[in-house]
Order: sequence, then C-alpha cells, then structure tokens
Amino acid sequence: MSGRLAVIGIGPGDERWLTPEADAALATAEAVYGYGAYLDRVQARPGQTRHPSDNREEGARAAAALTHAAQGANVAVVSGGDPGVFAMAAAVCAEIEAGPPAWRALDIAIVPGITAMLAVAARVGAPLGHDFCALSLSDNLKPWNLIERRLEAAAGAGFVIAIYNPVSQTRPWQLGVAFDRLERLLPVSTPVVFGRAVGRGDERIEVAALGAAKSIAADMATLVIIGSAETRTVVREGRTPFVYTPRAVARASV
Amino acid sequence: MSGRLAVIGIGPGDERWLTPEADAALATAEAVYGYGAYLDRVQARPGQTRHPSDNREEGARAAAALTHAAQGANVAVVSGGDPGVFAMAAAVCAEIEAGPPAWRALDIAIVPGITAMLAVAARVGAPLGHDFCALSLSDNLKPWNLIERRLEAAAGAGFVIAIYNPVSQTRPWQLGVAFDRLERLLPVSTPVVFGRAVGRGDERIEVAALGAAKSIAADMATLVIIGSAETRTVVREGRTPFVYTPRAVARASV
Repeated sequence: MSGRLAVIGIGPGDERWLTPEADAALATAEAVYGYGAYLDRVQARPGQTRHPSDNREEGARAAAALTHAAQGANVAVVSGGDPGVFAMAAAVCAEIEAGPPAWRALDIAIVPGITAMLAVAARVGAPLGHDFCALSLSDNLKPWNLIERRLEAAAGAGFVIAIYNPVSQTRPWQLGVAFDRLERLLPVSTPVVFGRAVGRGDERIEVAALGAAKSIAADMATLVIIGSAETRTVVREGRTPFVYTPRAVARASV
Repeated sequence: MSGRLAVIGIGPGDERWLTPEADAALATAEAVYGYGAYLDRVQARPGQTRHPSDNREEGARAAAALTHAAQGANVAVVSGGDPGVFAMAAAVCAEIEAGPPAWRALDIAIVPGITAMLAVAARVGAPLGHDFCALSLSDNLKPWNLIERRLEAAAGAGFVIAIYNPVSQTRPWQLGVAFDRLERLLPVSTPVVFGRAVGRGDERIEVAALGAAKSIAADMATLVIIGSAETRTVVREGRTPFVYTPRAVARASV
C-alpha cells in the first residue's frame, strides 16, 4: 500500500475556521508534522504521533513528512491559515521536485484553509473587495529591491496590498520603509488595517491612515492591509470603522 | 432589540469547506438573502425565510437585507467563496455608507470563507506559494484599459495572477486579450491553471502553458491562475501535474 500526505490549512487562530475537510484529514492521520505553535492548535488523537519542528525548517519538515508517507503511512502536515499562501504546500512541492521519483507517485492532497488576510479583512468590512495583491515583506528569500519594486507596481496600478510577514526580530525596519515608499504613491489618508493574532484571545485590530501608520506596532503575528486610492472608511459610532474597497472604480481615478 | 446582519462566505462548491462559524451563523438566521444559486447550496431550516435574487443585484440585495435587519431581525446574506473577495461584503459596506444612520448602528459580522483561488490552487499544488494578486476581469464596473494596466503591472513585477470573472456571455473576448498581453511579458511556457466549478460534481482542472492557454475553454464558473516566471510544473505520472511558485526567488530572475 502506498502512503498518503495531506497538507492541511488549519486557518488563523479561531477553531471555528477549521473546515470539516481539514478536521477529517487530521482525524485519519497517523502522524502530524508542523511548526510547534500550529501543532499545539491541533487536537491530540490516540495512536497519532506528533512531529513538531521550528518555524524556519519548512524544507526539512516537508522532506521528513514525505519520507514518512513513502513508507506507507497516512501523514499530515499542518499550516496556519492556508497551506498554499506563503506556507507549507510550496515547500512540499519543492521537495517532491528535488526528491526521489517515488515521492511523485504518492497520493498528495492539499486542504485549503482561511488565510490570514481574509480573516483580518472580515473584521473591518471589505478592504479586499476589489483587485488586491498579497506580498511577503520578508527579504530572507528574495532581495529587498524586488520587494520595493513589487510594492510600487501594486500601489501604482491601484491594487490593495495585503502584507504577510511584515516584521520579525531580524527584520525591524522593512515595514516602515514600505510605508515611506507607498506614501509617495497614495494619499496620506489611505486606510491601513493592522490585524494582530486574528481569531486568537489576544486579537487586536487597528485602523490608521497611511500617514500615521508608522506609529502602529506590528510584529510577526500581524497582517497589514494597505488600501488603494479607492478604499473608503465608514465611521460607526462605538464600533470599529468599516474599511472597504468598492467593486466599481470611480471614473475620477482612472 | 437591534437587529443583526451576518455576511457569510459558504466557500466554493464542496460543503466540507463550509466553516463551523459559517454553519452556526446560518443556523441562527431568521432570514437568508443571496444569489439563487448560492442559496440553493444552503440547507433550509424550519422557520427561516429565504430571499433569492439575481446575480447582478448586489446593491439591492444588500439594501433589502439591511432594511430587514434594522427591523430587529437576525439576517444572513450568503456569498459563494469568501464574502470579502469580489462579493457581498463590499456591497453591504457601500449600502451602509450611503444609507440611513441606523444602519451604522447595526451589529454586522463578516464571516470569512474559502475563496475560489485557494481551492483551485490546492488542487494543483501551490501556484500562489509566493507573491500574487487577485484581479477581476469584468469590465462592467471598471474600464478595460485599467484592467490591462493592472495585468501588465502585476506580471511585470513578478506577481502570480489569479483571475476572477474571466468570461461571461457578454464578455467573450477579454480573457484572450489578457493572455495576448501577458505573452509579451512572460515566457510562453508559463503555467496557467484553469479551475472550473471547483468542489462541485462537474469540477474540471486543467493546466496549460501560457502559449496554449487560449485553446482552453473558460466560463463564468472558472478561476484562472497565471504563473510568474518563477512558477514551476512538476510532472507526476498518472496524476495531475503539480504547479508551484517557490518561496525563494531565484537570483537569475531578479
């Protein structure tokens, strides 16, 4: 019998975002691999082994899970959010491409999940309601000048921008520089949404104007959404304002 | 007692993608509004009224649901996929902004869902594994020259492109022109994924090279993903090939 590997998105923090498909795939797995903090969010099941690893070991984790599956086991790899967005599915594909031919014969399933930008957007209305992009601000795996070029291309063409991995301990300045660059292309009043730890107990959602965005703290658990010139704020007394990008583009901005 | 409105993403076709949060919100609603084809996917519940409407009546549907909620009812509006991505959440926000002050005082919840690009990407590996954008190809609500500018900005800067609404009965030529434009900026071997009716019984997933993409049929139920110059194809004998975009950008393409 050949093995099976499921790469499973468990969504951001709230367990009510775990889909029935993901839950069923986790229930039948004999072994579960993942970053420790994500594994901690997965219910332990009798007879199932757990294989936590560090955050930046995606390649080694994928290879270990594939090796295990190739031995005939039913293996799961968990990702926070969606496994296809800056996460484990690409790492698994890369290991399959570089690995032994037997890995290409495995039964592999990618199980989609709610990715952070959708959950953060939902908290404030519909900032991603029209054309948008998702960009990782980490310059560990691509050069910073390419990131700046992508930010400027996206903002210049009118895309809303969702930023993953805005800040880490070794990357403290990149988000501030990104705001500086975008201020040259967008009104200072452009809404910026900071969604920290969305769906978890310590969730914090903040909305600021681009001109004041640098004063808001962000960290590794934050997802940032920067509006376009079309994005609007709707003040609601006693409630978080709504931020939304209309489906129709106003003639004036074309 | 003031009313409540939940704007609920029910995911693409497969009911195993309906989150527990969405299911719970549907269970408590007294009235459910939505495009008829989406309402048909929602389980009928005793005592709950159903209010189907046509596909292109988003504004009127949002206003009707808000009016109903302002009367004190617990109302749901359903969206296929995620309500925040080219869907009902932006329409609801726009009606609130333009509507009576009482609508701003309503308890409004946006419930995220699996959006089509995540489900289609999962079927073929991880084409959205690195920086990407989501673009509606409909020129009903924005001019075609702006769509071309966005396509060119995104491809030129190295974003993978997920195309929503690629084709409709009144918009037969736009996708072919988009492929023509992108062929000037990307290798003809760039992988293109067509995901039709993902998660439904008549699901069809096809992968083609950009140079041959015009020969693949697309319709209103299709989501198209166009790779970047970094996107790779992994052939697997007897299985759909994997398409993935590596997390690391190769030096040669910078």
